[in-house]
Amino acid sequence: MSEVERRARAALSRLTEPGDPRLTTLVAEHGATTLYDLLRHDRDAGGVLTDVATRLASTDPDRELEQADRLGIRFVIPSDDEWPTQIDALVSAGQLHERGGPPIGLWAKGPLRLDRLGQSVAIVGSRSSTTYGDRVAGEIAAVVARQGCPVISGAAFGIDQAAHRGAVAMDGPSVAVLACGADRAYPAAHTQLIAHLAETGAVVSEAAPGCAPTRIRFLARNRLIAALSRGTVVVEAAVRSGALNTASWAGRLNRVVLGVPGPVGAAQSQGVHQLIRKGSAVLASTGQEVLEMVGQAGEHLVEDPRAPVRPRDRLTSRHRQVLDAVPVARAAGSDSVARTAGLGIVEVQSALLYLHRNGLVEHDDDGWRLAALAHT
Amino acid sequence: MSEVERRARAALSRLTEPGDPRLTTLVAEHGATTLYDLLRHDRDAGGVLTDVATRLASTDPDRELEQADRLGIRFVIPSDDEWPTQIDALVSAGQLHERGGPPIGLWAKGPLRLDRLGQSVAIVGSRSSTTYGDRVAGEIAAVVARQGCPVISGAAFGIDQAAHRGAVAMDGPSVAVLACGADRAYPAAHTQLIAHLAETGAVVSEAAPGCAPTRIRFLARNRLIAALSRGTVVVEAAVRSGALNTASWAGRLNRVVLGVPGPVGAAQSQGVHQLIRKGSAVLASTGQEVLEMVGQAGEHLVEDPRAPVRPRDRLTSRHRQVLDAVPVARAAGSDSVARTAGLGIVEVQSALLYLHRNGLVEHDDDGWRLAALAHT
Repeated sequence: MSEVERRARAALSRLTEPGDPRLTTLVAEHGATTLYDLLRHDRDAGGVLTDVATRLASTDPDRELEQADRLGIRFVIPSDDEWPTQIDALVSAGQLHERGGPPIGLWAKGPLRLDRLGQSVAIVGSRSSTTYGDRVAGEIAAVVARQGCPVISGAAFGIDQAAHRGAVAMDGPSVAVLACGADRAYPAAHTQLIAHLAETGAVVSEAAPGCAPTRIRFLARNRLIAALSRGTVVVEAAVRSGALNTASWAGRLNRVVLGVPGPVGAAQSQGVHQLIRKGSAVLASTGQEVLEMVGQAGEHLVEDPRAPVRPRDRLTSRHRQVLDAVPVARAAGSDSVARTAGLGIVEVQSALLYLHRNGLVEHDDDGWRLAALAHT
Repeated sequence: MSEVERRARAALSRLTEPGDPRLTTLVAEHGATTLYDLLRHDRDAGGVLTDVATRLASTDPDRELEQADRLGIRFVIPSDDEWPTQIDALVSAGQLHERGGPPIGLWAKGPLRLDRLGQSVAIVGSRSSTTYGDRVAGEIAAVVARQGCPVISGAAFGIDQAAHRGAVAMDGPSVAVLACGADRAYPAAHTQLIAHLAETGAVVSEAAPGCAPTRIRFLARNRLIAALSRGTVVVEAAVRSGALNTASWAGRLNRVVLGVPGPVGAAQSQGVHQLIRKGSAVLASTGQEVLEMVGQAGEHLVEDPRAPVRPRDRLTSRHRQVLDAVPVARAAGSDSVARTAGLGIVEVQSALLYLHRNGLVEHDDDGWRLAALAHT
């Protein structure tokens, strides 16, 4: 039964484009197996998929699956245990947006099971990233991977690449979701990177093996990255970056969207700043902050960064009150300090002597002033 | 009547600390004039201000006001036309927080009337700022000042200084709120800057002339910066910066709080990132964005930054559909493009020729592929 379904979906996957709304609707209506039979025998399904039906007769799903298998690629479908159920969120969310439907199946290569992606974090961003962006993407990916959470990204130059490298450096699982077939390497310069991910993590595509990358498939791919991961981190994105498309999808699917800020003059950070400014992304600076946001409640709690304890923190509140009344510049007498502090002169004089012994105030002929140690 | 009140407030200002909650309560209860009389004659007001009463007898407010006048300093009180009524927000907000009460009066020097600060923007931040922070603070201040909105800050090194310089460069009004008397210059290195602001804008203090800067007064000063301005922009602040204290006050007073992000590794941006992350500040990148947030609704609308128009933007949607189906790497035949696009072969071939004439696709023996011009 499940293999019949797999054959049907493999054939449909080969002949339709990712997220094709017509297919989504028909699969929801008839089920994949029935739809496949309908299309093969009647060469029509209400007339909407005539072009698909015409070509479907000449497609051999058994051969498709066999060839994929020889390439080390398996075809994962919704009825499989391995199916990453979080992408089913596309069933409802996808109906409202172009090419937003759920995938008919996922072609996957690599040891990482797709049902392990529930805790994954997508790290996406500009292809023309800066050294700064690459460094931060790599650091965040390393922290995420060290916690055993898979990193998901594309396979492009820039942030995608930096994210995978960060995860791989920690021997963590990393997943590339491609716009072309899972057997292909695009860009060609990343042949090795993609091969490495296929050996240690996973390479996933909605497009059947052999498919070429097209813009349509890139856009459809972005929705998959968002739908597969628990949260999406955008590291550097110009105002018109594919990464913002991924972020939109994550938002539509009610997933966590995080943005890493950068210098305000940098074009590469403008898109991220816009997301944060509009409240579409929460600002994140570190991998720990990312984990805190995408993790289960209370799972990866982050302590707010704190400044080191300063000498004045160790004082009693009374001593601090006196210290706060000591001038920072020109010296003043203890009577003046007492007045400013609103305390008695005897108490203030005793406090000043204590503060002096601890190097927090200085004394000269004009009176008392703060020592360098106590500044701020 | 108003001069009687001014004398009473001048005397109380001389002898109490900024925001002293005891004074705030008593002034609210009795009024300043009655309280002054009470303290002078009974040397007590319910026993709480005995220390003040003791010294009040030896204070001569007429002489205080005269001396201030000779220094070019006026004492502005709530009944004056010049009173910046927006700080009255401290009357209620101040009761909940230490040293949060409204000022008893404001000592001011310079041509800018304080009632003109209703549209002002506070720009605050780290004393140990980076070149980046200084540049951004200066740029934002310049844009704000060019719109005629006064800039408010302290007079410290770093961001304060950079903000004033940015405003001054535009011949815009800039206001320094000091922790010491308005006749003093702290830090001494900013004597010239402070003198320039006193000539062109305003130098304001709650502390009477001659008063030394103390930590208490710096903290009280921060609440004034927040209360005087319509919104506060924090440019660079470490996790424990006085600027964050100003931002807290702005938040308590329901004023706009904006934060300028920076590189995530920089300690100087950590405090700002924390503010933005927790939703206590809205991210702002430019002076225009600052004006948009602090201005009246619809007053300074900002266009979202947009990328330049690309060749594909000018295509018809049909031509774009075909373009999006052309492979980015290895070439494919027009039948394959037609299948991906979901369009008829004749229509696709005609579109491909059009796209080819416009340099968006290339053609070789294997078929069609995107030209460099069309890449994303």
